[in-house]
Amino acid sequence: MRRQRQGRPSPGFFVPLGGGAVTRHTLPGLVDVHVHLRVPGGEHKETVASGTAAALAGGVTALLAMPNTAPPITDGAALADARRRHAGALCDVGIFLGATDANAAAAAEAAGGACGLKIYVDETYGPLRIETLPALAAHFAAWPRGKPIVLHAEQVAVATAIGLGATYGQHVHIAHVSRAEEIALIADAKAAGLAVTCEVAPHHLFLTADDLPALGSFGLMRPPLARPADRDALWAHLDAVDCIATDHAPHTREEKLGDRPPPGVPGLETTLPLMLTAVHDGRLTLDRLVALTSTTPARLFGVPTPDESRVEVEIGPAWVLPERGYHTRADWSPFAGMTVRGRVRTTTLRGAEVFRDGEVRTAEPRGRVLFGGAAG
Amino acid sequence: MRRQRQGRPSPGFFVPLGGGAVTRHTLPGLVDVHVHLRVPGGEHKETVASGTAAALAGGVTALLAMPNTAPPITDGAALADARRRHAGALCDVGIFLGATDANAAAAAEAAGGACGLKIYVDETYGPLRIETLPALAAHFAAWPRGKPIVLHAEQVAVATAIGLGATYGQHVHIAHVSRAEEIALIADAKAAGLAVTCEVAPHHLFLTADDLPALGSFGLMRPPLARPADRDALWAHLDAVDCIATDHAPHTREEKLGDRPPPGVPGLETTLPLMLTAVHDGRLTLDRLVALTSTTPARLFGVPTPDESRVEVEIGPAWVLPERGYHTRADWSPFAGMTVRGRVRTTTLRGAEVFRDGEVRTAEPRGRVLFGGAAG
Repeated sequence: MRRQRQGRPSPGFFVPLGGGAVTRHTLPGLVDVHVHLRVPGGEHKETVASGTAAALAGGVTALLAMPNTAPPITDGAALADARRRHAGALCDVGIFLGATDANAAAAAEAAGGACGLKIYVDETYGPLRIETLPALAAHFAAWPRGKPIVLHAEQVAVATAIGLGATYGQHVHIAHVSRAEEIALIADAKAAGLAVTCEVAPHHLFLTADDLPALGSFGLMRPPLARPADRDALWAHLDAVDCIATDHAPHTREEKLGDRPPPGVPGLETTLPLMLTAVHDGRLTLDRLVALTSTTPARLFGVPTPDESRVEVEIGPAWVLPERGYHTRADWSPFAGMTVRGRVRTTTLRGAEVFRDGEVRTAEPRGRVLFGGAAG
Repeated sequence: MRRQRQGRPSPGFFVPLGGGAVTRHTLPGLVDVHVHLRVPGGEHKETVASGTAAALAGGVTALLAMPNTAPPITDGAALADARRRHAGALCDVGIFLGATDANAAAAAEAAGGACGLKIYVDETYGPLRIETLPALAAHFAAWPRGKPIVLHAEQVAVATAIGLGATYGQHVHIAHVSRAEEIALIADAKAAGLAVTCEVAPHHLFLTADDLPALGSFGLMRPPLARPADRDALWAHLDAVDCIATDHAPHTREEKLGDRPPPGVPGLETTLPLMLTAVHDGRLTLDRLVALTSTTPARLFGVPTPDESRVEVEIGPAWVLPERGYHTRADWSPFAGMTVRGRVRTTTLRGAEVFRDGEVRTAEPRGRVLFGGAAG
C-alpha cells in the first residue's frame, strides 16, 4: 500500500485518484468491540456525537466503549452515569466496566449493564491498571460467566490471562494483539480448546515501527507499532483472529504534538477502507471480513445486529486517506496519505440511512445504549 | 513450636529434651523433588556425598536435583556429565534439565535422561532465568508430554504457567509455593481440572518474615519468607498441596554471613522431623504425610519407590534441632533451636540399612541415577 504524503492539511475527504472498476457490496453493519469515546472527562478529544458520527462514517453500527475515562467506569453508579451520557449516540453503544485493585465485587454486581469487563494488565492511557495476582484472581472469580473479560495483556501476560480464564471458566478476550508470539500463543490456546478469543487493530496490520520516523508521535499507541515480522505474523495467523477492532483512541493534534504525547490513534473511519483494500488485494475474502468485523464480534459480545443495519461499500477505485476532514474530533489519521481501494458509501441503522457519501444524515440520534441496565 | 536458641555451636545432634511417650512408624522412603546438590561447580557448598548423606539422615531415599549448577545443566552433554558426577550418590537421584532462552530443542532432545524441565520465571540463585513469551512458549511446545515442567513462578507468574500448561497440554508443577494467593489459585486450577500440581517447602510452613530478625541472612531464600497469613493459608490449603519438598539449597556459613548472602537454606535433615511434629500436633495425619513426602511425588515424577526403601521414625519425645552436626556440608539450619516431636531412626535403601541414629552406615554408594540416560 503506497503512502502518499500530501502535506497538511490535505484537500478533502477520501481524495479520489480515479481508475479501476467499482464493485458494490452490502455488508452487515460493523461491530467494533474496542473504541474509546472519551466520555466522560475527555470531551475535548471526542464526544459521543463526534465519536459515533465517526463510527457511522466507518460503517460501524454498534461499538463497545472502553472504561478508561475520567473518572473511569468502575461501578454501577459510574456505569449508569456513562449510559446516560451515551443516550445521544448515533450508533448503538455498549459500555465496558473497568477493573481496579478493589472493585471485583462492585464490577460483578454491575455486570448486567455492561458489555464486558476490561482489565488493563499492561500500561495504557488513563488510571486503570491492575497487576497483582490477588486483584486479578478476584475479578476472574467474581465476574459472572458469559460476558467476556477483555484484557490489555501483552507478552507473557497473554499466557497469564489464558491461565486465569482456564482456572475460573471465563471467556478471555485479548485486546489489540500486536506481536508474533502473542498471536501464535493464542492460536495454540484455541487449538487446545480454551475459551480464548482476540482482536487485532488495523494499525498493527497496516503499520509497523518502520513508519515511526514519518509518523512521529502520531504513531505512538499501546501496544506500540511492532516489527514487520509481527505484522506479517498477524496476517499469517488471521484464522486465529476473531475480530478486527479499531482501538479508536482519539487525542487532539495539540496533545500529540506536545511534550508528553498520549498513546493512541483514531481508527473508526479508516478501518473498513483499509480492510476492503486487503480484500481488493486478495489478502482475505469479503466473507471473512464480514466475520471479523461484524458477525463474530456480535456473537462474542452479544451485540444485536438487526438485518436493517447495514453498510454499502465500494471496492476498486483508488482513494487517498486524507489528512483532515474526519468526523472524529481528533480529525487526523495515522493512515493519512495511504492509498486505499475501498470506501463506505452509505450506512443504515435499523432501516434509516444515517450516513451517505461523507455526510452524517441523521437528524436525531438513533443509537441505543445496549445491555439494558437501569439507565438504558 | 518453641524456638530455643542455645548459642552456636550447639552441643550435639537432635538434642533430647526427654519426656513423652514414643511411637514408632515405618514409612516409605521420602521422595524429595526439589534439592540443590550444587554439583557441578558448587562443591564447597555441597557434594554428592554430603548432600545424599543429608538425604539419608532425613529419611529421603530419592531426590531430584536442580539444574542451576555451574555450569547449568541445559543440554544432553551437561546432563550426561551431571549423571556421571552423581554416580556416587548415597540415595537415588534424578536430575532436572534447566531452561534457557535458547535451549528448547536441546532440552527436549535430552528429556529422556532427566526427571523434568525446570524453568525459572522468577529470580533465583544462579544463571538460569527466562521471562519472555517466545522462550517460554518454545519450551512448552517442545518439551515431551508426560514429564513435568517445574516452574519457579511467583505471583502472577503462577497463572502464566497455568496458561502455558493448559495451552500446550503440559503437566505444570509449581515449585515452593509460598503465598496465600498462589495456593488459592492453584487450588482453583485443580478444581477446574487443569494439570497443575505443586510443592511447598518446610521453611514456608514453619517460618515467616517474623523470624527474619532472629535469622538474619540465614533466613533469606527465594521465594522469601512470607507473612504469617501466607503460612496459615498454606496449611489451610494443604489439600491442594501435592508434595512437601525441601528446596534444600545449601550455602556455607561464610557465604551467608558475607556482604551479599546468597538465597537458600538447607532442609534435607529437618523436613521430616518438622512434619512429624505437625503430625504429633494433629495438623495432618501420618497417611497424608506419606502422600505428601513419598507416594505423590513419586507418582508425579515417575520415581521408583521399592518396598525395601523405607524410613523408621519416632514421634513423641521432644528434641531440639541443633545448630551444627548435620551431614550437609552447609552444616547449619534455619530451624536450629526449634523443638520437634519426631525424628528419623533408620533409613533403608533397597533393603540395606544406610542410616541409623545419626550415622550414615553405608560403606558403598547404593544410590542410582534415575531416568536411565546414556550415562545412567
